[in-house]
Amino acid sequence: MVYLDNAATSFPKPQEVYDEVLNCMKNYAGNPGRSSYDMSVKAALKIMEAREEICRLFNIPSPFNLIFTHSATEGLNIGIKGIVEKGDHVISTVIEHNSVLRPLNAMVKNGVELTLLSVDKEGYLNIKDIEDEIKNNTKLIIVNHASNVIGSIQDIESIGKIAKKNGILFMVDASQSAGVVDIDVESSHIDLLAFPGHKGLLGPQGTGGLFIRDGIKIKTLMEGGTGSNSHLMTQPDILPDRFESGTLNTPGIAGFCEGVKFIKRVGIHCIRKHEEELASYLLEEFKNMPYIKLYGRSTVKSRTAVISINIQGIDCSTAGEMLNDAGIAVRTGYHCAPLIHEVIGTKHTGTLRISPGYFNSFEDIRQTVEAIRKIYTGHTV
Amino acid sequence: MVYLDNAATSFPKPQEVYDEVLNCMKNYAGNPGRSSYDMSVKAALKIMEAREEICRLFNIPSPFNLIFTHSATEGLNIGIKGIVEKGDHVISTVIEHNSVLRPLNAMVKNGVELTLLSVDKEGYLNIKDIEDEIKNNTKLIIVNHASNVIGSIQDIESIGKIAKKNGILFMVDASQSAGVVDIDVESSHIDLLAFPGHKGLLGPQGTGGLFIRDGIKIKTLMEGGTGSNSHLMTQPDILPDRFESGTLNTPGIAGFCEGVKFIKRVGIHCIRKHEEELASYLLEEFKNMPYIKLYGRSTVKSRTAVISINIQGIDCSTAGEMLNDAGIAVRTGYHCAPLIHEVIGTKHTGTLRISPGYFNSFEDIRQTVEAIRKIYTGHTV
Repeated sequence: MVYLDNAATSFPKPQEVYDEVLNCMKNYAGNPGRSSYDMSVKAALKIMEAREEICRLFNIPSPFNLIFTHSATEGLNIGIKGIVEKGDHVISTVIEHNSVLRPLNAMVKNGVELTLLSVDKEGYLNIKDIEDEIKNNTKLIIVNHASNVIGSIQDIESIGKIAKKNGILFMVDASQSAGVVDIDVESSHIDLLAFPGHKGLLGPQGTGGLFIRDGIKIKTLMEGGTGSNSHLMTQPDILPDRFESGTLNTPGIAGFCEGVKFIKRVGIHCIRKHEEELASYLLEEFKNMPYIKLYGRSTVKSRTAVISINIQGIDCSTAGEMLNDAGIAVRTGYHCAPLIHEVIGTKHTGTLRISPGYFNSFEDIRQTVEAIRKIYTGHTV
Repeated sequence: MVYLDNAATSFPKPQEVYDEVLNCMKNYAGNPGRSSYDMSVKAALKIMEAREEICRLFNIPSPFNLIFTHSATEGLNIGIKGIVEKGDHVISTVIEHNSVLRPLNAMVKNGVELTLLSVDKEGYLNIKDIEDEIKNNTKLIIVNHASNVIGSIQDIESIGKIAKKNGILFMVDASQSAGVVDIDVESSHIDLLAFPGHKGLLGPQGTGGLFIRDGIKIKTLMEGGTGSNSHLMTQPDILPDRFESGTLNTPGIAGFCEGVKFIKRVGIHCIRKHEEELASYLLEEFKNMPYIKLYGRSTVKSRTAVISINIQGIDCSTAGEMLNDAGIAVRTGYHCAPLIHEVIGTKHTGTLRISPGYFNSFEDIRQTVEAIRKIYTGHTV
């Protein structure tokens, strides 16, 4: 199978990830941070190693400011709902995923003001639009770093500067960029960074993280046992405990740690370069296929390898099934990002999304192009 | 190592659990329910198999009423916070874990009325107390099925009857009982059942579930991408999607499924019988060790194998470390259950908790007893 759905979850993972998940489960899957016996301590040390590795990747100042979540969705909900209150104004964009839009929309019903900025046809924000929308009660700017539909990468450094200048909290959804695009929470003035472990960071599903900058007051969404202040009925204030109730996914985090270490060994720039080359190959081929409608930018400048298309005359879900028959895995539909389809004109069709990853080869792309050609030709014959 | 901390997380897991986690990660860890290509479909089918296996275990009427969570804590928070609103009255107990007490306590600050019933020295509720506390605004009764400190099993069937008779929702925290004690959501009139995957159900950490009876209105705690109604900014109403935003922990759930299948093959009664025998052995030995202060019931009637003690004259954390040096893993402290310590008189000391599981042998218990004897003797010499 040619797997081209890395925007949904990366596959395969580095061998070290498989090995460490298994090693942890078999040898040290104690409950981390709850006890002082060797296996529990070993579990806690692995969790700390993972925290430190992830922090180094994003230039997060302290491992205690990184909380483990089970998905980017959880981190986004914790950040958004923990910060924004009735009467607050939030600035976000139409390119967001439902993991941002749905929590925000739920809060609008509770008296939160929301401005959703539009993007151009290629999926880019006009940074000036943000400044224009800032009001006295603007509490949070939350932006999708890289689109899961058309791959556009937003200029978070510039947005961070605006947020900082105006004393507004800045949250970034790095679901599609973490592990693929450089992220520095310091130079981009990011206050909250949410990311999954199982996409570009090459860890197992069921992992993710949220960076919370020191000094930000966040209400808890959930409370429970933390192994700290055990004798108290109130949630501890200290990070990361405050947001890590319940048993962590130790084997998952152990694998996540190895995914991040793999990225560091290979080099994020090498990963990005390889993905750009694959994307470039695909985009160039599509230029010679007039029946391909490409959405988003046709070059790899400021975009990831997430590429949305439609094949003329063929419903995208049918095309997806035909590709599956040819042994090629892609995703079709709306990709949980409802509003961007208005911008790119796919509100009634959805798109066929091709998202290669680090482990894909040029041969994978060649086969995919070939299969699409055949699908179109077979269809029109 | 002799592992006796199964109340925190079970260890080891059945070989099939390790095998399936790895098999899933390597062969079918697509994003379940998001796409129609083979690997995504296979992932979704495994998730459905897990749903069905778990439902059969608890006599849950439909797999769609089971939502996957990442821990019991998450399920408890979803249930409690989704149901209870300002002005509602909740009945619970002092034997609850912080995964119940802390969310409830947080809600008290938001205008929820809370009655925490006491338990006797052995950790049992007086069922009549529940009836006495029911008021017009009582919305929810939530009870710990089996204590994570002293193992007492509550009579949930009788409590369920009271709840049903009075039209009150009944939620059970089965963190310590799922997989060890029979649970039937129908005969016990349970409306919400929260459980972890990684304790008695023998799955990996990072898994859990929540049964929600049909027709119960629950607000969402989190919203996000569900792969359904993707074009809408509102969370779908249908179960399980409504409460399963973000990518599921597919490999974890695959392993969880195998854990449940293992339990079914061995038979929950065989598991319980073995654990009772181990507990009985330990309890009998302790009767001949006058320097052991046992908390909770000294026989295995209506109790699990979770056994709390203190060794006379030795701080429990010191004793725990000494046991660790002897190769025996136990947990010490408050076990995230703050209020029960007032009842059993360990408010200032905590307890040393020994929790054998299905994979422990009588030899493990013998070694533990021997080690405790040596610790006491060595200490008093």
